Amino acid sequence: MKQKENILIIGAGLCGSLLALRLAQRGYFVNVYEMRPDLRKTDISAGRSINLAFSDRGNKAMKLVGLENKVKSLCIPMHGRMIHTKEGETFLSNYSGREHEYINSVSRGELNALLLTEAEKHENVNIYFNRKCKSVDFENTTALFKDYEDKTEFVEDADCIIATDGAGSALRKSYYLGKKFLFSFSQNYLTHGYKELSILPTETGDYKTYKNALHIWPRGDFMLIALPNLDGSFTVTLFLSYTEGKYNFNNLTTPEIVTKFFKNEFRDALKIMPNLVEDFFKNPTAALGTIKCSPWHYKGNTLLMGDAAHAIVPFYGQGMNASFEDVVEFDSVLNQNKNADWQTIFSAYEKTRKKDTDAIADLALDNFNEMRDHVGQAIFQEKRKIEMALEKEFPEDYTSKYSLVTFNENIGYKEAMLKGRAQDKAILNLLSNKLISTNDKTSTILEKVKKETEVILNENRIAGL
Amino acid sequence: MKQKENILIIGAGLCGSLLALRLAQRGYFVNVYEMRPDLRKTDISAGRSINLAFSDRGNKAMKLVGLENKVKSLCIPMHGRMIHTKEGETFLSNYSGREHEYINSVSRGELNALLLTEAEKHENVNIYFNRKCKSVDFENTTALFKDYEDKTEFVEDADCIIATDGAGSALRKSYYLGKKFLFSFSQNYLTHGYKELSILPTETGDYKTYKNALHIWPRGDFMLIALPNLDGSFTVTLFLSYTEGKYNFNNLTTPEIVTKFFKNEFRDALKIMPNLVEDFFKNPTAALGTIKCSPWHYKGNTLLMGDAAHAIVPFYGQGMNASFEDVVEFDSVLNQNKNADWQTIFSAYEKTRKKDTDAIADLALDNFNEMRDHVGQAIFQEKRKIEMALEKEFPEDYTSKYSLVTFNENIGYKEAMLKGRAQDKAILNLLSNKLISTNDKTSTILEKVKKETEVILNENRIAGL
Repeated sequence: MKQKENILIIGAGLCGSLLALRLAQRGYFVNVYEMRPDLRKTDISAGRSINLAFSDRGNKAMKLVGLENKVKSLCIPMHGRMIHTKEGETFLSNYSGREHEYINSVSRGELNALLLTEAEKHENVNIYFNRKCKSVDFENTTALFKDYEDKTEFVEDADCIIATDGAGSALRKSYYLGKKFLFSFSQNYLTHGYKELSILPTETGDYKTYKNALHIWPRGDFMLIALPNLDGSFTVTLFLSYTEGKYNFNNLTTPEIVTKFFKNEFRDALKIMPNLVEDFFKNPTAALGTIKCSPWHYKGNTLLMGDAAHAIVPFYGQGMNASFEDVVEFDSVLNQNKNADWQTIFSAYEKTRKKDTDAIADLALDNFNEMRDHVGQAIFQEKRKIEMALEKEFPEDYTSKYSLVTFNENIGYKEAMLKGRAQDKAILNLLSNKLISTNDKTSTILEKVKKETEVILNENRIAGL
Repeated sequence: MKQKENILIIGAGLCGSLLALRLAQRGYFVNVYEMRPDLRKTDISAGRSINLAFSDRGNKAMKLVGLENKVKSLCIPMHGRMIHTKEGETFLSNYSGREHEYINSVSRGELNALLLTEAEKHENVNIYFNRKCKSVDFENTTALFKDYEDKTEFVEDADCIIATDGAGSALRKSYYLGKKFLFSFSQNYLTHGYKELSILPTETGDYKTYKNALHIWPRGDFMLIALPNLDGSFTVTLFLSYTEGKYNFNNLTTPEIVTKFFKNEFRDALKIMPNLVEDFFKNPTAALGTIKCSPWHYKGNTLLMGDAAHAIVPFYGQGMNASFEDVVEFDSVLNQNKNADWQTIFSAYEKTRKKDTDAIADLALDNFNEMRDHVGQAIFQEKRKIEMALEKEFPEDYTSKYSLVTFNENIGYKEAMLKGRAQDKAILNLLSNKLISTNDKTSTILEKVKKETEVILNENRIAGL
């Protein structure tokens, strides 16, 4: 192996372990420091989503590192949303009119373990657990760590440091507190939080409800979702306001109130959740926030990646996929900048990538608002119906915003957002002006939607939007 | 005077001194702590804009406290923008088609001094200078100060604390670092900074260029502006990128380069700025940032107001006006919530006010982008021409975005933004689709613009924008 630089990665979560693997494949010497114990030896899932939506952008990264098939064996396909009404009726709404397009439920822990194991197969990778990064000296490219085992502190240096240490990133905090340069930064919390619950398997290990869907109990201001696990269970998440509405996290204080809330709102879920009260009071309530910042890098010394650079709310199922796509994009920048210094590489990476991570952050918020405000409106239901018909009859000619974001890994999030939002607006305009209806011929609708979309995109271009 | 509560105000800038005056008029006991020396006794203008645009929203606040006439004597009316081309040609572009609508240049120092003096006329107001707030204990409603005179630290308590301590607010920092509640926060810097320069009076004390205008030398990626002062001088501000472009703050490092830059770009200005080089290297380069946050208050204990809650970039000339309007809105919330506790008052104030301060922040950024990207485009010049004609011929029926924001103090910024943006888009759509032209009859244009604006607003409503 030829002489290559030393890279220090802070954080061995999904993004950090994938990045370590890919940089190892490229021949770099990689040291990874993780604050948590090795999740392959300890159960440390508490308080974090234990399964996640995995889709085409994430899969592109798995292809890049040669793990597509291994990851597939961890995946449970979810072809659509199984919507549960208040009365307990269910109906399946596919994610796409194209049958081969679906998302997957995957265990965060299993996937992370696979990536760690694959990274460690490279002798140029070392992963150290129980080492928490406390701060980064980005002028001198060193990081200060606390060793949780022997309680000592130590400093590591490297040719460059990449922080994939999540929403609470130590490097990002050092950028902010350092005041050495103009650091644009935002943390925006929703008024809603979330809590994880569970639907356990039957005694014989079977799924208590339909396996191949993302179950959703939309109730306007709050909702419950459930994603399947390989062991027959579902991980259930309750999204609810902290303080507003008849029921909220602040007033769900007793087993009686929690049970009453579920009996009123999620009756069919409650029937298969005998463990509800125990879960509810055992598991923490966590916040939902969006983090954006810039610059991501300081000279050629340090770089933020993954949630450390751009944490998003979970309503598009793209958090992990976006972080995996970071690694794909970074790899592509490395290919295009052979022999360049790290400053050039980091600059080029942020320039190409940031517009897309900003876009997925905004799209995820769009979806939160859409689910709260629009789910019950007739015009939005008509729009969804039209889009499914268009995708089904003209799979080559029409792609909904959801499909552009989720299944089109070769279109950036920003482009998907601009086109997707214009299409949505086009359909809504045409519906509200009665220029189309769900009874029209799909080919007629397609033509009108395409034309109106072009008009909207052009007007936005002129207005400089 | 009946028993009233004690209010501690942090910061005796424009917002803090106005707030102190108004609360004193309402009968509260007010203690104000300011980190700087008394500006009526010391010249401390360095590094801050020494004149500002004062318009109708700010004037509404002056009316409220009975100072309209006193402030008028400090004002120099500016009826429009005097645009200076690269070749040194000038033309005046009025701010409004209505002659009585204009903005004013006012000295920050003089206005602040007036407000301090008026506040101190009330025996229930005490203002302490040279006391810097270091942090606020918002659970216990106390603030820690450093006395710059005797170097001691001391703690003050009050029934409630209102921080008007500007973009670097100590209370906001305490909210952020305290992590006691979910605090949404953003600081976003432009890639441009600014530097203050000057055009001095003639030897006989006259103005060297036209007095009653805001002079502007727009050059796409950078610009120079100048506002008149009462003493015959102009305060000049250069807005320029830190790092991009042929000339930027990073490479303007010698008197020769600075002079060459001005000779190339601002030839007519250079002729009346013999002191350019001295100013340039004496005065600091400052950053341009937007700050948003929420919540502004913690229980009924503490509240952020003015720049401390919502600092904006200067491109709409609304920074001071927005902070003054804060006091008007707060006063109105006090009127509507007689006998309510502070928590109720602070909540009601943020609920009614935040949407508007968010909007003016976005509008100010709009203007930055407009000046950079659009100033040279024919379609934007046609739009401006049409708007001036509409305002002139139909002063009651058409109000441009600029006028809605600047001269219509009874319309909130949010409403002004939504309507103003829709109107702008309507005119651009109609122009680009050749449905109107600058040669059409103004009444025909008005009708079409109004109709198209309604269509756009309606479509936005349906799309949930």
